Amino acid sequence: MSPSDHSPPLPLSRRWHWASQQAISFLMQQGIENPQVLSLAAGFVDPATLPVAEVQRVANEILGHVDSGRAALQYGTTAGSETLRRALIQHLAHLEKIPSDRLGITHEQLLLTTGSQQLLSILSEVLVDPEDIVLVAAPTYFVYLGTLEGVGARVVSVPTDAQGMIPEELDRLLAGFAQSGELPRVKLIYVVSYYDNPTGGSLAPDRREAVVQLARKWSRDHRICILEDAAYRELHYDGPTLPSLWSYDTSREFVILAQTFSKTFSPGLRTGYGILPRDLVGPLSDRKGNEDFGSAHLTQSILARIMQGGDYQHHVARLCHSYRRKRDAMLAAIDTHFAHLPGVHWERPHGGLYVWMTLPDEIQTGFQSQLFQHAVKQHKVMYVPGELFYAGPLESRRRTQMRLSYGILDESSLEEGIRRLAAAVRQQM
Amino acid sequence: MSPSDHSPPLPLSRRWHWASQQAISFLMQQGIENPQVLSLAAGFVDPATLPVAEVQRVANEILGHVDSGRAALQYGTTAGSETLRRALIQHLAHLEKIPSDRLGITHEQLLLTTGSQQLLSILSEVLVDPEDIVLVAAPTYFVYLGTLEGVGARVVSVPTDAQGMIPEELDRLLAGFAQSGELPRVKLIYVVSYYDNPTGGSLAPDRREAVVQLARKWSRDHRICILEDAAYRELHYDGPTLPSLWSYDTSREFVILAQTFSKTFSPGLRTGYGILPRDLVGPLSDRKGNEDFGSAHLTQSILARIMQGGDYQHHVARLCHSYRRKRDAMLAAIDTHFAHLPGVHWERPHGGLYVWMTLPDEIQTGFQSQLFQHAVKQHKVMYVPGELFYAGPLESRRRTQMRLSYGILDESSLEEGIRRLAAAVRQQM
Repeated sequence: MSPSDHSPPLPLSRRWHWASQQAISFLMQQGIENPQVLSLAAGFVDPATLPVAEVQRVANEILGHVDSGRAALQYGTTAGSETLRRALIQHLAHLEKIPSDRLGITHEQLLLTTGSQQLLSILSEVLVDPEDIVLVAAPTYFVYLGTLEGVGARVVSVPTDAQGMIPEELDRLLAGFAQSGELPRVKLIYVVSYYDNPTGGSLAPDRREAVVQLARKWSRDHRICILEDAAYRELHYDGPTLPSLWSYDTSREFVILAQTFSKTFSPGLRTGYGILPRDLVGPLSDRKGNEDFGSAHLTQSILARIMQGGDYQHHVARLCHSYRRKRDAMLAAIDTHFAHLPGVHWERPHGGLYVWMTLPDEIQTGFQSQLFQHAVKQHKVMYVPGELFYAGPLESRRRTQMRLSYGILDESSLEEGIRRLAAAVRQQM
Repeated sequence: MSPSDHSPPLPLSRRWHWASQQAISFLMQQGIENPQVLSLAAGFVDPATLPVAEVQRVANEILGHVDSGRAALQYGTTAGSETLRRALIQHLAHLEKIPSDRLGITHEQLLLTTGSQQLLSILSEVLVDPEDIVLVAAPTYFVYLGTLEGVGARVVSVPTDAQGMIPEELDRLLAGFAQSGELPRVKLIYVVSYYDNPTGGSLAPDRREAVVQLARKWSRDHRICILEDAAYRELHYDGPTLPSLWSYDTSREFVILAQTFSKTFSPGLRTGYGILPRDLVGPLSDRKGNEDFGSAHLTQSILARIMQGGDYQHHVARLCHSYRRKRDAMLAAIDTHFAHLPGVHWERPHGGLYVWMTLPDEIQTGFQSQLFQHAVKQHKVMYVPGELFYAGPLESRRRTQMRLSYGILDESSLEEGIRRLAAAVRQQM
């Protein structure tokens, strides 16, 4: 009853072969095989903050009445619950600090997806042909790099500093593509705009405007879109709140704005969404129709009620209070345990879930490195190797960085995790 | 604030252009624009059967305890809830009428998806390259034809009679591909094995075995897989229960078995699943990881408890009782209103949600036909045109058939709907 040794081989598609080995699976496997490990790796939200009571109350409101209960258990539409989409337009107006009738869009330009990851995936399917060019920051969100490989994209890194992607470098790259005749291949510029995954930094306001202007400038014969991934936007702890790139796209043609409930409320409800230029609504809905006809309607119905009541804002405020303390605990521990180690650098994030740390040039951090192996097996602590966040051949990437998350662990475990990590790094010096 | 008239054009991908216009969107739009219409079109389940009280009770069990509540609201794994997957292996054993330890598979070969549609979509992405060949019955499930177009597949119809796809014709086609050197292009045979959408018929038992043997026979240098779509398997009303195609694939190498909760329990929970050959688990999980990291964990947690209690079996029994009566009501109304119309034929289904009707050659049924237009606008009744269920150019398809569903309407509305439809058909004679 088991496959014979001489099974005819599976003919897997080219697209499957393009997709990278998923580093995230390897990380999860490490966690399972080493249960004593303190994980600074997972970008999950803190389980203690999950809104169990709020979801229970709202689920009872919905399922306690036969009409609303049946509606939630029936198919929804491909684009998702209209009530939730209308509530999210109001929410967007709140974030953008303008009245909703001045947003220049309607709820019909909002598509609900299975996490914002599905929006990123569908958008890439609809815009990107094999060999097309997508511009990204270096470093950038590694899961999306895998998605781009899966559609056969040519990923080009834009030089990046502590203020994010450098507009002059983006302009220079686009000018180069124009000169080489490759401009028609350029489809998308991807920006994690708030408290970036992995760096924790945010694109500076003047650069936001500049990136939008560059997309417009180089959209000569076709549109070059910007995918603004604002997953961490609402996890803001201190410093000024920043306008979105989307807000600079006054004609609402260039920027696709992706957001999610996975960081601010509950990842288990798997609900993200995209704000779309009007002429992308049809193509993206068609694609989503072919993939799944729409995400889970029950969870959308729950979120619609959460947004209509005041629960959501209160929850986000509590969450930010909790993460601010955890960020401070991690930074304090880093000050204590890393400050005396030569050649180690890190940034202080104003929001999100990550601290990005750079080690001296001689200490590699990858899965196969001594540091990673010793950290996991001997010191019982895990991080995400920085090299995963770069595109291109491994040899050409920076290989001495680490993403450290304060998402899951409590304050005392964060302190202990950082202590263990510093011991592992010291061992390599 | 609105897109200018001279927006640079969106550069949509080839894959997007391949995907067909989605007929289902047009149908839904017709329903919205004509609210008095009785719909024999939608393949939805009857809202009156949706298990509101059961889901409420189980949601309260989960969310009433902080640990289980937090777990349900956190990320799950890409493959989905292990508890649900283990319960579904037991359920499969029940359907296959053998002990679970004789199934020859484990829960690790079961992937949970956003409805079974996502399984169909992901499998096609992972196996099918542009210009690859997929063999289907004629007629077959039209939404999957759209999915196949989206991956650039060449869809080839296998001649089909009232017993389903004809194995001798399948063999002849495969022999032809071998002769022309195209056999390496053949990736998949798609079969809706129980109470087919649209015909309501089931592939005869001897043909099930024959189709599996043919996949094996022609898997010379690579494996030709069978996608068995068993969405309607459990909606069985009378006649013998049939073994799955999967049961004839004793080495568990060739058949991917897709099932769903959308027909038997609740489509709003958007949970389907696939039973996979062992070496397809990794590739499909990787693809699902890139698309969405896993479907909604809360709804999987709800279904896990539903399966562990006895609720599910009771619900399916009630459902079958209700649909049996509705099928009988539709067939009785057809006998009354259609029996005297010359040249009209229909089949009596033993399960599922559909009656397939063939009209005389001179009466076309497509969206643009007089019949469809009169039916919707004048007689206020809607069906799904048969031509949607065939692959290939419109001119070469049968264009005189209709799919009639007894899913949503109650018995008296079914009677009235069929009366209206007969009036519309009579008008064309």
